[in-house]
Amino acid sequence: MMRQAGRYLPEYRAIREKHGFLEVCKTPDLAVEVSLQPYHAFRMDAVIVFCDILVPAQAMGMDLELGDGGPVLANPVRDSVSIGKLRSFDPEVETRFLCDALRQLSRTLGSAVPVLGFAGAPWTLACYIVEGRSKDGFPAAKQLFYREPATFRMLLDTIASNTARYLQAQIAAGASAVQLFDTWAGELTQADYRAAALPAVQQVIREVKVAYPNVPVILYSKGTSHLLDSLAETGADVLSLDWRIDLAHARRRLGSRIALQGNVDPCVLLGPRQAIAEAVTAAVQKTGGQGHILNLGHGILPNTPVENARLFIETAQSIRLSASAKAVPQ
Amino acid sequence: MMRQAGRYLPEYRAIREKHGFLEVCKTPDLAVEVSLQPYHAFRMDAVIVFCDILVPAQAMGMDLELGDGGPVLANPVRDSVSIGKLRSFDPEVETRFLCDALRQLSRTLGSAVPVLGFAGAPWTLACYIVEGRSKDGFPAAKQLFYREPATFRMLLDTIASNTARYLQAQIAAGASAVQLFDTWAGELTQADYRAAALPAVQQVIREVKVAYPNVPVILYSKGTSHLLDSLAETGADVLSLDWRIDLAHARRRLGSRIALQGNVDPCVLLGPRQAIAEAVTAAVQKTGGQGHILNLGHGILPNTPVENARLFIETAQSIRLSASAKAVPQ
Repeated sequence: MMRQAGRYLPEYRAIREKHGFLEVCKTPDLAVEVSLQPYHAFRMDAVIVFCDILVPAQAMGMDLELGDGGPVLANPVRDSVSIGKLRSFDPEVETRFLCDALRQLSRTLGSAVPVLGFAGAPWTLACYIVEGRSKDGFPAAKQLFYREPATFRMLLDTIASNTARYLQAQIAAGASAVQLFDTWAGELTQADYRAAALPAVQQVIREVKVAYPNVPVILYSKGTSHLLDSLAETGADVLSLDWRIDLAHARRRLGSRIALQGNVDPCVLLGPRQAIAEAVTAAVQKTGGQGHILNLGHGILPNTPVENARLFIETAQSIRLSASAKAVPQ
Repeated sequence: MMRQAGRYLPEYRAIREKHGFLEVCKTPDLAVEVSLQPYHAFRMDAVIVFCDILVPAQAMGMDLELGDGGPVLANPVRDSVSIGKLRSFDPEVETRFLCDALRQLSRTLGSAVPVLGFAGAPWTLACYIVEGRSKDGFPAAKQLFYREPATFRMLLDTIASNTARYLQAQIAAGASAVQLFDTWAGELTQADYRAAALPAVQQVIREVKVAYPNVPVILYSKGTSHLLDSLAETGADVLSLDWRIDLAHARRRLGSRIALQGNVDPCVLLGPRQAIAEAVTAAVQKTGGQGHILNLGHGILPNTPVENARLFIETAQSIRLSASAKAVPQ
C-alpha cells in the first residue's frame, strides 16, 4: 500500500510528534518501528522501508528541508558547474542508516515477509533537484532539459549511477525487491519521456540487474496513460500504475510478461466501505488476479480511516484465499 | 494561447500593480484593456475575455479570495444543505461586468476578430467548491462523490444549469464561441468520469446548443489521455488537449468530426527559440493543419519571454500563410 507507513496511522503520528521526518529516516530503530507499524496492524504481504526519495539528493550534496509545504532543496542545481559538483556517494556511508534499517527489518521479518527498498527514478529526482521543490509542470526542470539537453543528460547520468548503487546497497542489506518512483514521468510527452526519462531509468534497472539479476524491480509512475508502451521498455519486472489507467487495458496492451501493481484510487479509501470492497474486486478482476500486486494508485491519504485501510487489505486477502481454495482440488 | 492575457506581459503586470485580480475582472474597462493587450502585441486570431473560472462560484454565493497561493473559497460546500443554498444567479445581474466587457470587446473588434467567452466545467468547478482550494487529487470532492453520489449529482446539476445560463449570457453579449475548462477531469478514472463529469458537461453543452446551435463550444481538459473516447461524447465541437496527448493519435482515434486545439507544452515557450518553431510545426503536422486551432497545452507560464510568445504565434501564422499560398493556384 503506497505510503503504507504514514500519517493515517495513529501510532505513526505518535512517533512523529516526538521526532522530525528526516530524524525518523535517519534513526534505524525509528525507521524500523514505523516501517513495521502497518505490518503489525494489517499483516500485508510486504514491508517497505521508511525513507524519502530525496534522501539521495541530500547524500549528493543538496540542502534538504522537509517542511509542512513539502520537501525543499534550498540550493537547486541549474547549470553544468553545479551539476558537476553533485557528489557520487557511498550508500553504506552517507545513507548507512537506511542500510541498517533494512538489515534490521530483514532480520526481524525473516524470509517469509519480503522487505522492499526504493528510490526516486532519475527524471523525478531531477525535477526536484532542478526545481528545488514540487511545482506544477516543473518548468525550471523542463527549461533546462529543452535549453541544455546535454547538461540535463549529465544530471540524469549522475543521478542514475548514484541511484543504481543506492539500490544495490539496499538489496545487499536485505531488500528482496526494489521500487523506483517516477512520480513526475507523466508530465512528459512521449517524445520527451523517450529522450530524457527512459534512458536514465533503463540505466538504473540495467545496473541493478547486472548485480542482482533475480531481484524484481517495480516501477511506479503517475499519469502515464500515454506512456504505457515506453514503460514496458524500461526493463522493470512490475509496472505500478495510477488509478486512471484501466488495468485490463494495460494487461491487453502489455501482455503477461510484465506484472502489474495497483491501482485503486486512494480517495476510494475515504469511504464508503462498500465502494472499497468493490474497487478491490474490480481491480483484481481486470487482471484476472494473475501477475498482479494489489496496491493503491498513489499514496494513501492522511485522513484515511484506519478501518478502511484494513478493509482494503482484508478484501484483497480474502480474494486470494478464495482463489487458492479454488485452485486446490477438493 | 491559454492564459494569453497574463503575467508574462509587462503591460499586464503594470495594470496588476495598481489593481487586484478580481478588481480587473469586475471593472469592464480594465478587463477589456487586459483582454486586448495580447491582441495588440501579437494579433492572434481570437481574443478571450479576461475573467476567472471561480467568478460563477462567487455569484452562486461562495466567498472567493484570490491570493498568491491560488484561489480560495473560504466556505467549501460539503453537504446537501449547503449545496441547496447555492444560488441560481442571473448572469446579467451578478456577472454583468463580464457581459459588459464582452459587449465592449465585440464592439471594439468588430466581426473580423472573434471574442471567446468561457467557464469552468461542472466537475472542475465542483472540485473547487467542495475542496475550497486546489489540492492534489481533490480528495474532499472525491470523497463526497463516492460517499454521497446523489448529493454530488445535485451539486453538479446546480453548477451545470448556472454554467449554461452564464455561457448563454456571454454569447448574447457578443462571444462568438465559448470554452469550457475541465482542468481536473484527468483526476478521474474513465468510469468516474462517465458517472460524474460527463453527464454534467453534456448538460451544459446541450443547453448552450439549444439556444445557440451554431456557436462552437471548445472543451479543454488536462491529463485526459485515458478519456479521449468519452471526451468525444461531450458534444463539444473542439477538444482542447494538453501537451501529453499525441495529436496524431487523437485525430486517428476521434476522426475529423471533432476539431482539435492545442497542444504545445507551455514549458517549450521558455526556450530555446528553435524548439518553439519546431514544436509548432510538429503540432500542425500531426493534424495536417485541418480542423486544428493551434494553442498551448496548458496556461502560458508567467516567466515566458514575450519574444518567445511572439515566435509561437508568428510561426503558426507563417505556416497558415504558406498553406493558403499553396492552396491558391499560382
